[in-house]
Amino acid sequence: MELIPLGTSSATLVKERGLSAHVLRSDGSVLLFDCGDGTQFRLKNAGIRHSRIKAILISHLHGDHLMGLFGLLFSMSLARRDTSLTIVGPEELASIVSAIPGLSPSELSFRINYVKLKEGFEHEEVYREDQLCVNARPLDHGAFCIGYRVTKYGPKKKIDVERARMLGVNNSEQFRSLAMGKSVLTTGGQLITPKEVEDTSRLQAVFAYVTDTRPCAGALELAKNANLLLHEATFSQEHEALGWSTGHTTAAGAAAVAADAGVNKLLLTHFSSRYSDLSVLEEEARTIFPNTAIAREYNVYDIMSADAKQEAGMAR
Amino acid sequence: MELIPLGTSSATLVKERGLSAHVLRSDGSVLLFDCGDGTQFRLKNAGIRHSRIKAILISHLHGDHLMGLFGLLFSMSLARRDTSLTIVGPEELASIVSAIPGLSPSELSFRINYVKLKEGFEHEEVYREDQLCVNARPLDHGAFCIGYRVTKYGPKKKIDVERARMLGVNNSEQFRSLAMGKSVLTTGGQLITPKEVEDTSRLQAVFAYVTDTRPCAGALELAKNANLLLHEATFSQEHEALGWSTGHTTAAGAAAVAADAGVNKLLLTHFSSRYSDLSVLEEEARTIFPNTAIAREYNVYDIMSADAKQEAGMAR
Repeated sequence: MELIPLGTSSATLVKERGLSAHVLRSDGSVLLFDCGDGTQFRLKNAGIRHSRIKAILISHLHGDHLMGLFGLLFSMSLARRDTSLTIVGPEELASIVSAIPGLSPSELSFRINYVKLKEGFEHEEVYREDQLCVNARPLDHGAFCIGYRVTKYGPKKKIDVERARMLGVNNSEQFRSLAMGKSVLTTGGQLITPKEVEDTSRLQAVFAYVTDTRPCAGALELAKNANLLLHEATFSQEHEALGWSTGHTTAAGAAAVAADAGVNKLLLTHFSSRYSDLSVLEEEARTIFPNTAIAREYNVYDIMSADAKQEAGMAR
Repeated sequence: MELIPLGTSSATLVKERGLSAHVLRSDGSVLLFDCGDGTQFRLKNAGIRHSRIKAILISHLHGDHLMGLFGLLFSMSLARRDTSLTIVGPEELASIVSAIPGLSPSELSFRINYVKLKEGFEHEEVYREDQLCVNARPLDHGAFCIGYRVTKYGPKKKIDVERARMLGVNNSEQFRSLAMGKSVLTTGGQLITPKEVEDTSRLQAVFAYVTDTRPCAGALELAKNANLLLHEATFSQEHEALGWSTGHTTAAGAAAVAADAGVNKLLLTHFSSRYSDLSVLEEEARTIFPNTAIAREYNVYDIMSADAKQEAGMAR
């Protein structure tokens, strides 16, 4: 599972950074978190085909996180996509999208499954594939805003073979029965239920996506023990009051969340246009949480090691 | 008056070209023709401030000409623009824009004056400043689509001083009277009316914007005697049938319009993603209309000489 930041700017444009968009890639399927204006060009630059996107998860309805969605959906339809797409976000999204020329259900070449979140929700599973599960919680941005936690599992095994062996299961017939959900009697006369040998070793990695928000309980829950936490750091401590009043977090604030949540690595994103040199944010966070880095656009971060491996689009 | 192409691609994305957007700059005020996804980044790259945009003129409601409008308006509002903006285009535009979060009249920091064109209109003046006038005519794209013709005038003079002198006006009192709309009697006893000495020498340059369309009468009217015609050339002659069936023009077709309309120079734009080398289109057009060039993104074309002067963003 890899993270590829495509847009790390907060709302005001700078030449050097794109508007909010981050890709999570896992076994060839792609989740896109937020979709600022121009995201489809950044996907192209990164060598990521939009046909691979299984789900788009929108944090909130501010333009810098949203306005690229329409052009991306238009391009998907133009390319005659025929597999359905999941869009997760505030409940109003469906009607917004379908009011735009070319994006109504009757015009699109593919189906959109909307997962609609309502203000006031507490937590919810919003997306699931065979080996991925995404949970959502509300953040604290003023406007209704949602954070996400992605859990990646290993290949699905029906039973924990090692554990079954330890409990005395020793022939293939019995393994098969357990895998089919039936209890078996060991040669030692013990009844073993499928529940007892359930495979619980599948958890591989956790990624948390937290933007836009003040430091909050939702962020902490989403980030708990994550391998990689991507957290907004719009400002430095110098502008803490401004951060609070506009519903944002400082680099130090993001680091405190990372430390409290016991994450392995923290990546900072969503930078105010006032910072041309981001090292001030990185250094501020590192005094509190040393394993912090600036999310660099087009870098590929392995979620397990959380190190940048290469530049997207370079190796493909 | 200068033209700066920002996006010369047809709908399918290629890395090298942006989606439809062309800037016309005149004495510091800016008109934007079409606004594909990501246009606000291209404006920034070209060093053109969105605060300078007086009017946005949309040809039609296909996504590749439209989807960048929402992000651009969001950025204008975020920057607390307080001067009104004119948007010209199909009548549905107003309700589309105002249904998007942040872009309703009560949320925007500025007022939008919509000039709404209805399918079936024949020709209409859609925008006027002191020295600029824009007229619109329908094109032939299948979907309702509008072409534009911009006329640039010189600084407004009340009377043609040379002509008045020739008619015998020879003192400053009489010049002032004519400028104030009063007739005067010359020393030779002749009555001179203001109408007789009206300044008709103001026309400086004409620019025509024609995309998306098949070759059509509207295109010809818009282009008549223009200094610069920007015309779509989605395909080469090899794909003429495809061009016709999808409502587009070949390079040769654009050149024929330029020749028939008696323009000074033809710039080609809106290129299919199948052409990585655009010289095939340029050469095809030049066999019919020699003074043809490919519109190069970020080049600055002087409308009078219609030559590229420099790269936008470089010189400012």
